[in-house]
Order: sequence, then structure tokens, then C-alpha cells
Amino acid sequence: MKEERYFFVPNAANSTELPEEEAQHAVRVLRLSAGDSIWLMDGAGFFYRAEVGMANKKRCFYHIVESLPQNKSWSGNIQLAIAPTKMMERIEWMAEKATEIGFDELSLLDCKFSERHVVRSDRIERIVVSAMKQSRKPFKPTVNEMTSFGQFVSSCKADYKFIAHCYNDRKRIDFFDQLQELPKDSSVCILVGPEGDFSIDEVEMAIGNGFEPITLGNSRLRTETAGLMAVTLAQLYKRI
Amino acid sequence: MKEERYFFVPNAANSTELPEEEAQHAVRVLRLSAGDSIWLMDGAGFFYRAEVGMANKKRCFYHIVESLPQNKSWSGNIQLAIAPTKMMERIEWMAEKATEIGFDELSLLDCKFSERHVVRSDRIERIVVSAMKQSRKPFKPTVNEMTSFGQFVSSCKADYKFIAHCYNDRKRIDFFDQLQELPKDSSVCILVGPEGDFSIDEVEMAIGNGFEPITLGNSRLRTETAGLMAVTLAQLYKRI
Repeated sequence: MKEERYFFVPNAANSTELPEEEAQHAVRVLRLSAGDSIWLMDGAGFFYRAEVGMANKKRCFYHIVESLPQNKSWSGNIQLAIAPTKMMERIEWMAEKATEIGFDELSLLDCKFSERHVVRSDRIERIVVSAMKQSRKPFKPTVNEMTSFGQFVSSCKADYKFIAHCYNDRKRIDFFDQLQELPKDSSVCILVGPEGDFSIDEVEMAIGNGFEPITLGNSRLRTETAGLMAVTLAQLYKRI
Repeated sequence: MKEERYFFVPNAANSTELPEEEAQHAVRVLRLSAGDSIWLMDGAGFFYRAEVGMANKKRCFYHIVESLPQNKSWSGNIQLAIAPTKMMERIEWMAEKATEIGFDELSLLDCKFSERHVVRSDRIERIVVSAMKQSRKPFKPTVNEMTSFGQFVSSCKADYKFIAHCYNDRKRIDFFDQLQELPKDSSVCILVGPEGDFSIDEVEMAIGNGFEPITLGNSRLRTETAGLMAVTLAQLYKRI
């Protein structure tokens, strides 16, 4: 099966047609036609072996030959909530890499010192879908619209909640050490701040809402690197 | 001290003048003049507090006020040898992120299935220097010119040598598990292949030269992500 023949089809089992964009790729770029084999990923835990049915320049039908339920390769849930960087490409690559490495949910935070207060989450969604296909992840990470810091910390429902900040004079625990104490199948959420860090008021508000202050090691990391490091450490601990 | 006032000056203790590019940044962009405070990093373990002396549009002299020897924050040595990706920007961000996270040496490999056989290592060097300044690393990672795979594996002098490959039917050990068995102050070298992986011949040649085959976890990672993952895992184990 050639590399390119993977298609993202939400709710694939209850449909018979590729979404428009995937159909165009299948027909115009890959020149697939009736009888060709393809793979569908529904982003919800299933891969399907399928066969192309009727196909023209705009539409591509399929029928499923075999359903292949997939397992997640880590326990519990990894959520990253991060302030988008000034340069979109930095947060975009982070979304791509975090998807490859494996996480469940990306939330975008509007913080006091944020360099960016508006973000096109649909662009990030596309990058996540592309990385999910490329890395064959059976579950698509959720990408949430940007919310204010206050709203996020007061409504986060994760079992274990952490805030990574850079105030050296404040008590922080090492994130990777701390992970070893948690049940592997728990849900964790990590907050990562903007280029100018969280404000002290934000750090205190998070602590007041049950977030534990952490450090991600002794390196001075950019926002997007810190986000990826948080995901990598959680993934490393929770992998099966 | 403002963010921008860090300058990379190799052999700073034996000089009295900023290199041309740094001088232009100091004088034209930051508009520094005689008496202003600056920080110098020599990339060899020292930071210096210094003061600007005579400065004009092309040249900027300094004198050192205080020498501040720095410690490395990890034990031993981390070398990554990787086949550059087809898209330069992918290998460039990896070099940036690996520098932030912390490693010692980057070697570029020309492999059988390489998508790129020519690489401007001076561009990667600039990115490494910039990331070193930004993340305040006291030691500059070495960037080596591209060499052939065969030449590299037959001359690599690291204490522990590993090759990450994706042949599922071949025996591989988990890299992070394996790291726990090594002396922390040892030198490790990890080989990461191109988009199309190493050839089986290359894998066997590496094994014949003392490289152990490893996996970096159960995710399907792009070349540049695998490189960063290898550095991150080594760093996590070797951090002090």
C-alpha cells in the first residue's frame, strides 16, 4: 500500500463517500479509480481497508472491505494548553510534532502577556489532521478554540493539572519526576505560557484552581519547545 | 540586562572587539555606545560581563568586567548523526530545538536513501549559534560537515553507539530503557536515517561497527522528529 493512500474520513463506517478535499486528492493527484485499494482513518480509533467505487473529478465513493479497530499506544489523556506564539509557524510545527509524538487535546490560551490574541484554529486543525495521517495515529487530537486563561483554568477537568512557568524564585517541582507518582491511566493537563511567560497573577490563579507549578528541566526553552517537551515527557511516562 | 544584549564571541577573553556581525547588531540595531553593559558568551563554557568601549558603525570594542565560568547541565556527551531532510527548514528547526534542549554535536550523514546529498552546514551553524544565545547555553554544539554513512560509522568514537531504524522485523531495543544501563557521564551517539530510512546494508554495517539497533518508542516519527526525540531522551537521562 503506497504511502499516500490514507484518507481521513470522520465517521467513515457510516458514509460511502470521501470528503471533498480527500476525494480531489484521490482522483486528481493520485488518479485512483474504481477497484483501487485505499485506507480510511476515522480519527476515532478505526482504520478501514476500502475499495474505490464510482469516482469522478469531484466525488469519490468507496466501500469498506475490512474494519480494523486500533489501540491507543498510551494510557490516559494528555492535554496541552498553550499560549500561541507570535509567529504562527512556531505553534504550527509544535502541533505537528506533538501529534506525531502523541497527545489528545490542544487548547489555545489568551494570556496577559500573549503576543497573539487571535489564532486560526482551523489552520492548526489541518496540520494536526495531516500529521495524524502521516504518523498513522488512530485517534485525532482535539483542537480547541482559543479561550481566556481565567476561563480555562477555572473549567479544566483533568485529573492532574500543572502549570509550567519560569519564575525561579517560586517553588516548582520537576514535571518528569512528578509524573512517576501518577496513575498511568490518569488525565493530565499542562499549561505553557507565552514568550513573556505567565503573569504572577495568572500563576497564582492557576494554583488556586488546583494546578501544580512545575519545571520542564533546567533548559531555557522557547514557548513552542516547552509545549513539545511537556507532551514528550507525558508521552514517555504514559506509553504502553 | 535586556534580552538582546548577549553576544557570541569565540575566544572572548583574548579579544577586545565584537565580531563584525555582532558589532553591527550592537551598534546599528541596539544603538549601544561607550559605557553600556553587555554579556559575552564564548561558546566554550564562559559568560563575561563586559562594557562597550569605542564603537562606531562598523566596529565595537569591549573590555571584560567579570568572568563567569558556567557548568554544563548534563553529564557526558550527546552526539546526533542524522540524514538531512529534503526540506531544509525541517532539519534547521531540529538543530534549533536540539540546541535549546541541549546536545553536544551534530553530524550530517549522506545515506543511500538520502533525499538530500548537499547541505549548507554554515546555515545550520548560524541557527545553532542563535539558539545557543537565546537559550543561554554555555557550550556551543559542534556542527560537522556532511560525511558518508560508511565513513561516519567506521570512525565514530563514542562510548555507546546506537542506530534508530524502522525495520519492524529486526530486533531493536528501546532507547530510553537502554540509556538507564549506561554510565551517565558516557558519550553516546545516535544515528537517525533519512525519510526512506537506512538501507538494510547500512543497518548491518552500523551493527558491524558496534552500533546497537534501537527504537525511539512506538510512534511513527518523521526524520527530524526522531532526531529531536533521540536528543530529548538522552538529555533527560543525562541531566544533572
